[in-house]
Amino acid sequence: MTKEMLLNKELLSRNIRLWLEEDIGTGDMTTATTIPLDRRSKGILHVKESGILAGLPVAQQVFEIVDPNLQFNPLAEEGSFVAAGTVLAEVSGNTRSILIGERLALNLMQRLSGIATRTNQFVQALENLPVRLVDTRKTTPGHRMLEKYAVRIGGGYNHRFGLYDAVMIKDNHIKGSGGIELAVRAARAGIPHTMKIEVEVESFDQLEQALAAGADIIMLDNMDNERMREAVRRIRTAAPHVLIEASGSVTLDTLASIARTGVDVISVGRLTYSVQSLDISLDLDTIKEPGA
Amino acid sequence: MTKEMLLNKELLSRNIRLWLEEDIGTGDMTTATTIPLDRRSKGILHVKESGILAGLPVAQQVFEIVDPNLQFNPLAEEGSFVAAGTVLAEVSGNTRSILIGERLALNLMQRLSGIATRTNQFVQALENLPVRLVDTRKTTPGHRMLEKYAVRIGGGYNHRFGLYDAVMIKDNHIKGSGGIELAVRAARAGIPHTMKIEVEVESFDQLEQALAAGADIIMLDNMDNERMREAVRRIRTAAPHVLIEASGSVTLDTLASIARTGVDVISVGRLTYSVQSLDISLDLDTIKEPGA
Amino acid sequence: MTKEMLLNKELLSRNIRLWLEEDIGTGDMTTATTIPLDRRSKGILHVKESGILAGLPVAQQVFEIVDPNLQFNPLAEEGSFVAAGTVLAEVSGNTRSILIGERLALNLMQRLSGIATRTNQFVQALENLPVRLVDTRKTTPGHRMLEKYAVRIGGGYNHRFGLYDAVMIKDNHIKGSGGIELAVRAARAGIPHTMKIEVEVESFDQLEQALAAGADIIMLDNMDNERMREAVRRIRTAAPHVLIEASGSVTLDTLASIARTGVDVISVGRLTYSVQSLDISLDLDTIKEPGA
Amino acid sequence: MTKEMLLNKELLSRNIRLWLEEDIGTGDMTTATTIPLDRRSKGILHVKESGILAGLPVAQQVFEIVDPNLQFNPLAEEGSFVAAGTVLAEVSGNTRSILIGERLALNLMQRLSGIATRTNQFVQALENLPVRLVDTRKTTPGHRMLEKYAVRIGGGYNHRFGLYDAVMIKDNHIKGSGGIELAVRAARAGIPHTMKIEVEVESFDQLEQALAAGADIIMLDNMDNERMREAVRRIRTAAPHVLIEASGSVTLDTLASIARTGVDVISVGRLTYSVQSLDISLDLDTIKEPGA
Amino acid sequence: MTKEMLLNKELLSRNIRLWLEEDIGTGDMTTATTIPLDRRSKGILHVKESGILAGLPVAQQVFEIVDPNLQFNPLAEEGSFVAAGTVLAEVSGNTRSILIGERLALNLMQRLSGIATRTNQFVQALENLPVRLVDTRKTTPGHRMLEKYAVRIGGGYNHRFGLYDAVMIKDNHIKGSGGIELAVRAARAGIPHTMKIEVEVESFDQLEQALAAGADIIMLDNMDNERMREAVRRIRTAAPHVLIEASGSVTLDTLASIARTGVDVISVGRLTYSVQSLDISLDLDTIKEPGA
Amino acid sequence: MTKEMLLNKELLSRNIRLWLEEDIGTGDMTTATTIPLDRRSKGILHVKESGILAGLPVAQQVFEIVDPNLQFNPLAEEGSFVAAGTVLAEVSGNTRSILIGERLALNLMQRLSGIATRTNQFVQALENLPVRLVDTRKTTPGHRMLEKYAVRIGGGYNHRFGLYDAVMIKDNHIKGSGGIELAVRAARAGIPHTMKIEVEVESFDQLEQALAAGADIIMLDNMDNERMREAVRRIRTAAPHVLIEASGSVTLDTLASIARTGVDVISVGRLTYSVQSLDISLDLDTIKEPGA
Repeated sequence: MTKEMLLNKELLSRNIRLWLEEDIGTGDMTTATTIPLDRRSKGILHVKESGILAGLPVAQQVFEIVDPNLQFNPLAEEGSFVAAGTVLAEVSGNTRSILIGERLALNLMQRLSGIATRTNQFVQALENLPVRLVDTRKTTPGHRMLEKYAVRIGGGYNHRFGLYDAVMIKDNHIKGSGGIELAVRAARAGIPHTMKIEVEVESFDQLEQALAAGADIIMLDNMDNERMREAVRRIRTAAPHVLIEASGSVTLDTLASIARTGVDVISVGRLTYSVQSLDISLDLDTIKEPGA
Repeated sequence: MTKEMLLNKELLSRNIRLWLEEDIGTGDMTTATTIPLDRRSKGILHVKESGILAGLPVAQQVFEIVDPNLQFNPLAEEGSFVAAGTVLAEVSGNTRSILIGERLALNLMQRLSGIATRTNQFVQALENLPVRLVDTRKTTPGHRMLEKYAVRIGGGYNHRFGLYDAVMIKDNHIKGSGGIELAVRAARAGIPHTMKIEVEVESFDQLEQALAAGADIIMLDNMDNERMREAVRRIRTAAPHVLIEASGSVTLDTLASIARTGVDVISVGRLTYSVQSLDISLDLDTIKEPGA
Repeated sequence: MTKEMLLNKELLSRNIRLWLEEDIGTGDMTTATTIPLDRRSKGILHVKESGILAGLPVAQQVFEIVDPNLQFNPLAEEGSFVAAGTVLAEVSGNTRSILIGERLALNLMQRLSGIATRTNQFVQALENLPVRLVDTRKTTPGHRMLEKYAVRIGGGYNHRFGLYDAVMIKDNHIKGSGGIELAVRAARAGIPHTMKIEVEVESFDQLEQALAAGADIIMLDNMDNERMREAVRRIRTAAPHVLIEASGSVTLDTLASIARTGVDVISVGRLTYSVQSLDISLDLDTIKEPGA
Repeated sequence: MTKEMLLNKELLSRNIRLWLEEDIGTGDMTTATTIPLDRRSKGILHVKESGILAGLPVAQQVFEIVDPNLQFNPLAEEGSFVAAGTVLAEVSGNTRSILIGERLALNLMQRLSGIATRTNQFVQALENLPVRLVDTRKTTPGHRMLEKYAVRIGGGYNHRFGLYDAVMIKDNHIKGSGGIELAVRAARAGIPHTMKIEVEVESFDQLEQALAAGADIIMLDNMDNERMREAVRRIRTAAPHVLIEASGSVTLDTLASIARTGVDVISVGRLTYSVQSLDISLDLDTIKEPGA
Repeated sequence: MTKEMLLNKELLSRNIRLWLEEDIGTGDMTTATTIPLDRRSKGILHVKESGILAGLPVAQQVFEIVDPNLQFNPLAEEGSFVAAGTVLAEVSGNTRSILIGERLALNLMQRLSGIATRTNQFVQALENLPVRLVDTRKTTPGHRMLEKYAVRIGGGYNHRFGLYDAVMIKDNHIKGSGGIELAVRAARAGIPHTMKIEVEVESFDQLEQALAAGADIIMLDNMDNERMREAVRRIRTAAPHVLIEASGSVTLDTLASIARTGVDVISVGRLTYSVQSLDISLDLDTIKEPGA
Repeated sequence: MTKEMLLNKELLSRNIRLWLEEDIGTGDMTTATTIPLDRRSKGILHVKESGILAGLPVAQQVFEIVDPNLQFNPLAEEGSFVAAGTVLAEVSGNTRSILIGERLALNLMQRLSGIATRTNQFVQALENLPVRLVDTRKTTPGHRMLEKYAVRIGGGYNHRFGLYDAVMIKDNHIKGSGGIELAVRAARAGIPHTMKIEVEVESFDQLEQALAAGADIIMLDNMDNERMREAVRRIRTAAPHVLIEASGSVTLDTLASIARTGVDVISVGRLTYSVQSLDISLDLDTIKEPGA
């Protein structure tokens, strides 16, 4: 999917409405009783730590849903590196509306920027080696599309989006189906000819079975670099069109050496798992209306 | 709310369905094509790091929604300390169902146990001082009730659940409404007599205004311990029934000293913000049916 | 909540759509077959009895939802006293649309004006005594927010909005929990520190228990004025910050004498229960288009 | 529709859920914190005024939706006359569940019994004259099916259920379409041959037009008894299969004399409009468990 | 219902959204990745076979829902005969949007034009005899209103829309209820006086029972023309206001002779059953922007 | 997807509910008023033409949703050839429930069996040649999964399920993106490495571009057999792992000769387009209860 698809308006809109409902419920008691109905303000979003900015269009949609009359002006570029203190955007209009959307907009930007920042650290560590860094399904429930978007913003690629859009035969499926060849054959018969089959292998024995079964992608799970290099050689010889993916305990330190084994793809759960949010806050100035 | 209310069946069920839909979409291509329809297995959930266990009933509900015929047997106690390697639960039944629910059940338990573990560290740091440790609204969008549940499991209390269930007059509301007294008076007129009003103060001047306005709760924002002690003395004298809350940059190291200033409540955003998940995994054994 | 919150656009919109669907179903057979598609008319809403007008913005939203091109012009002020025969509003535009929205708009205005009118009679009876007249949960299912809005329009205040936004320990809870002190203590432990606890008492013995337990509000249930005065004295002495509410069989005749006992709040179910609607009707004039 | 259809399980279930949500929201704070989770009670519903009982199955469905394990035992017969003090039903089971459903169940029974009681007074006034007493569309928004059910329970019949299930050409449609004959002809062309056309007439001139146009039902609007008798004679002669309906300002006093004019149907808005509820309440006894 | 009602915006909009979701799911992978976001094109819809055009406003709504900025210009008239090769409409705007809506818009127009074309063949075969040609409930699930609309476009009329809007007593109901007279009497008691009762008869014995019971419409099921003529004579004599419907195995060849028996209505399942779609396609031209 | 996935319970259930609502609306007036509430019957489903049976589990789910107490007993095997007159199933229980579900159950079985029957004719025509016969997206809106299921029952395979699960670059995308190589490259960058890319080619020039661009599947559009054979030779030489699909104007007569050109897959729109339904009906017998 393109980045625009990952920010799919309708899905995002449904989620933002649910999340706003969670926070607002029957209404914001405080602003509704203390802030005059027609008070207008400007809110300034700024970042307190440096990192890669992700989530500006998401914050914008939050404010749009809260109140279509709010003006949201981005002042930094999505995906750029922002230093601590940078002003990211301004949002102007009805004071109540700004305060009602504030918490959710910040929560989302903080989390997405955290993911983009970490992804970018991994991308930097790849030193332009010809490998795709991809995410996994270890995302926050309800936030998968957004988090996979943030991975893209940080310079990474996406693995499959869910259980529905690719066949990925792992250890448990191999056990449950009676072996790699049976599993691949059964999968091939049940899916459209437009879909690929990926097989996870832990040994050279399994690797040979995956090749014999006609896997389209082979994932090397938790192999050391030595064995990985050997596996890559074997696959390139036997089936040059097969894609090779490395997975398991990848860290910033080990990433480049894994990439140098010649694999096509490296998948890293930590891109979206236990991520440190980037601290962002909103300061409010009441607008001085001319003549008011 | 009680813990049972925070695990409200209907809300949780709606969310779990949305989250499963996110992962499964039109179906799990891999299990549906590779695992025979009637294959049965047992899955073992065990924890790989030590911490406080939270989320067992949530995982149970995930598996129940995926397949009401799955058997889920908890083997550790919700809220207890579990050492690395502890088996938390077993889930038995249709193999496809176990694999379909696995990812979501783990994702949720890992996150909730992470929150309970961190909360418990803060509770330990309080050394039984007579103070309520409470959370904030800095929760993951869509997960607020669950995360506030995890705070309770870890030994903490909850602050308000959203913008709807308490009046909390912060700096921005004070600016926007023309001062503390105006804000409190306007709020009092607009809310039922059953609801409290909390005012955030940053100075002794504001503190006096809050007392004069008849606030029910006063939050001391970012004061050092010295000033906090003084503020507590002043409030106890002027309005003994008023509750006092401390907030701002609270860490494990500073918690006990803040508690000793005599405040009633300390609120800590970090209980639910940028939390490290607890690593939990599921291992599958295919069940040997007698005679099969 | 403020009046605007009680007319919450999204909730009201959902309800109006349900109510229109109830009346229209698969379509208005009569207008669709007998009224030409482009016929335009003006409808005049006038009241046939005197009373307090409530519900104009609700009627306006009904017509807006039926057809956003209708023009709705209010000609009387929401909350004002209107004499029989007063024109309340005009609605102009497509004839079919006016006829489709007519019944629901009238039904709602008639009921809300009935509630506002009755509430206002009670408010008049209070003779400016310093007491809050509040409603109860005896509202029409599905219409609570609207009916509590009409109470506000009539000059009353609102009690809690539902079971969710206040703890109110009544006779049944006292029995079910083992006594007032146990009940209050259990409630306090289970709710955020931002929430109040109200206890209903029927005797001086219960009153003492409620005071000892630290209730925030004490409701005197069905006491005669003599005992009520005594209870007020006792509470003011023991816990000056506690609010006192009177309840039970309040009528227009007894209201002022109850208020004079010194209670803070009087709750009256009759504000929203078995209310007489105010008769309002819509007359249609076909618009003479110039040159048509 | 039969009475069972008017209590349509799915529609009623959807509405009860909405109405419970309105009252309960995020949860019943009081019962959840004060009543032990496993406490069991018996609730006794009794009526405090005499009247016709309507709504027992509705109350039963409320309690079933709140908690499928509650036992609801009706002790009086739906549609029967009940004297003040009669016990209507018992509901046993979890104490929290009974208290959560109480308010809605009572609200609904009180209103429906009020409608059945009033309808029955009108039916009694008819003295067995061969006329159908029918309701109108002046029902509470969202409660139409229930209120039309209560009319049936009280001995009345139903008019159309909404704008969708019959053509009813009133004054406004006559004006808007260019006359009765044009209106009837246009309607006939646009509806299935299975549907009837009713025309409201205010004069003998209009009556002749309605006959000429081939109306299936003629409604005599606000005619005095003298003119009504003459209209009935004219219709019976000209078109014996046409049904005749009387409408407008019908009271308990005038009903029988209108019926004696020979009309087939009398429609009365007051059956469902500004109805006095019947007072019903629920008393709770905590169940003494054997050995507890 | 009028044709406009059959194209009810809200119902159609809900269905189009469901149908688009079925085709698009998480997004159109191909256009999103290969067509630049701002590319603009014009699509030309033309028909490859001759027939009656139906569904232009439906296609227009599809494109409007996909992208409100698309321009849809009809170039042929709904309901007109179109020869093979005729251009039906142009749709201009964002290329991705045109491609995303293409399949559904075509699917719907092809099917509806097929129904209108077949209906029109039957209408032609009626040779202006004074009979209503009507459809049945044998429609595609989920498409009833649209298919009944296409029947109207082709020159036919509609029978009832579902089980809810007319009583139609067929063989199974006669058996199940204990005979025609019992069935009609029970139905009459249960329905509003505004609704008609139709009885299906297969013999002269049943015909007499239907007349005696006071049926409003009598359907002659599978009678030959001789017997049908006799039945018509009998009904016209006994009850001139009763409508007569013929049904069963009607073909293009037998239609006119059935009409000449004097019946009022002929119902034909084949109008909407196993219909041959009309072949329509969309050709795309990329718009040459000036200066681009 | 496996066949079970195509009959996905939740999606099917949602659709069946929508389709029942379309037919039943506010209720079945006829059965509710004429058939006693407790009458029981047995319905016999039999087929009036020979063909391949598809849709039994769908009919079963229809009856289950209408009334979970109905007993549905299949008497013929899904996917088997059934001769005219064969009894397919019996459904027993409440008479009203059987009559309410009848029309929808029949509509669905008739259509699905029609598709399975036609698909099977194409499969027979293939004479066991090693080719996949696949469907297209020319399905009835709202019925895609069911119709693709019927194709499988008839012996065919499925192409992609929608725009979301495969990249398929057609003529319009080639024009819109600036050529095959640009299109494939852009697609590859935007999709996960788990997804295939199919390119439609109409000439040998385009074929070479598709090969150069690294397409995973090449669709030969509307080529004659001679050119198709040459294209197959070229692809097999240049990229042995690439799949070859034939498409365009395939009929029962031309199918086998196309298969003999050596392609891997043949896609046929007619499998689901303008399909002749298989005539199936339900006969009702009232159950003679013992002693009744």
